[in-house]
Amino acid sequence: MRALEDLTGYLSRLPGIGKKSASRIAFYLVKTPSSYNEAFSDAILNIQKKIKICQICGSYSESDICDICSDANTDKESICVVEQPQDVITIKDSGVYKGLFHVLGGAINPLNNVLPENLRIKELMDRIKDNNFKEIILATNPNEEGDFTARYILRLLKDIDVKVTRLASGLPIGGDLEYADKSTLLRSFNSRVNFE
Amino acid sequence: MRALEDLTGYLSRLPGIGKKSASRIAFYLVKTPSSYNEAFSDAILNIQKKIKICQICGSYSESDICDICSDANTDKESICVVEQPQDVITIKDSGVYKGLFHVLGGAINPLNNVLPENLRIKELMDRIKDNNFKEIILATNPNEEGDFTARYILRLLKDIDVKVTRLASGLPIGGDLEYADKSTLLRSFNSRVNFE
Repeated sequence: MRALEDLTGYLSRLPGIGKKSASRIAFYLVKTPSSYNEAFSDAILNIQKKIKICQICGSYSESDICDICSDANTDKESICVVEQPQDVITIKDSGVYKGLFHVLGGAINPLNNVLPENLRIKELMDRIKDNNFKEIILATNPNEEGDFTARYILRLLKDIDVKVTRLASGLPIGGDLEYADKSTLLRSFNSRVNFE
Repeated sequence: MRALEDLTGYLSRLPGIGKKSASRIAFYLVKTPSSYNEAFSDAILNIQKKIKICQICGSYSESDICDICSDANTDKESICVVEQPQDVITIKDSGVYKGLFHVLGGAINPLNNVLPENLRIKELMDRIKDNNFKEIILATNPNEEGDFTARYILRLLKDIDVKVTRLASGLPIGGDLEYADKSTLLRSFNSRVNFE
């Protein structure tokens, strides 16, 4: 049946969903209330219409400036540098950090043609020069590319008088920050170390 | 962000998708080509518009009579009774059986208010009386409700001169037919036994 095969095909392209799961979900969607399918379908269309990139930090936002950058309660003296917008939400939701963020858009990886100029590193340097941050927390992923990117940024900061830290190990090496649980994140934040 | 939370909410209601997977998929959909999201969204809307119930066997179909019931190559002498439309596809795709199907729409389960009259059992009896089947294969799930339903149907068939079989064990007990792999299904079909 074409309609089922089509839907199964789209579902199985989603991350973490194999062919059997996709088929199971497609059958589930045949029997859901049609109002659910309509709302789900709308939510998929809306996601790209409504989500923008914050002009300051590069994270996702529904307005030009994101809630964290515009919130008066955000601690404006520290900036946490991450690879992806989802890392902002992971850290924010954990509640262990109340400061600003900066999203690079990835990590340096010459083999995949991701060079420093493809990331929001210049924007980060501009923010650091224009503001008087007390601390820069380099929270790129604890893997080869993330470590390399952190060292690259550290080198750019060598003439600037600011404390630079990196999240402590405690995060599983080789993993993705996005999957860290709250207690791991808490330990990483609390034992963060001077990065030099 | 409302749009992300909405989409994550709809995704996490799908079978087998937890909150973290839903969030990961939602972030993935922010960055996919918009043509993919449009086609995916359409496929969800289409599934209920295009999928009907076959008027003969009760399986899913894009026309009034499904491909299996209308196919001249289908072996019309045997009928395989299953609980759900997805079971038809699982068995059909395995290639071990070339005959007709009958979908009950579930299994008898008085605790959940599923009584014989809520299932397509009368339709099955009518088909059996109107046709001259050589074999009825009871392929309800190998669990308590499925076994009970098979025994219930067997009793209804006691005055009818037809061979009644049940898929051999080999299917994991307590499991769902939908998840069976091809070799397990093959063994179950090949060693199916008279059911009495």
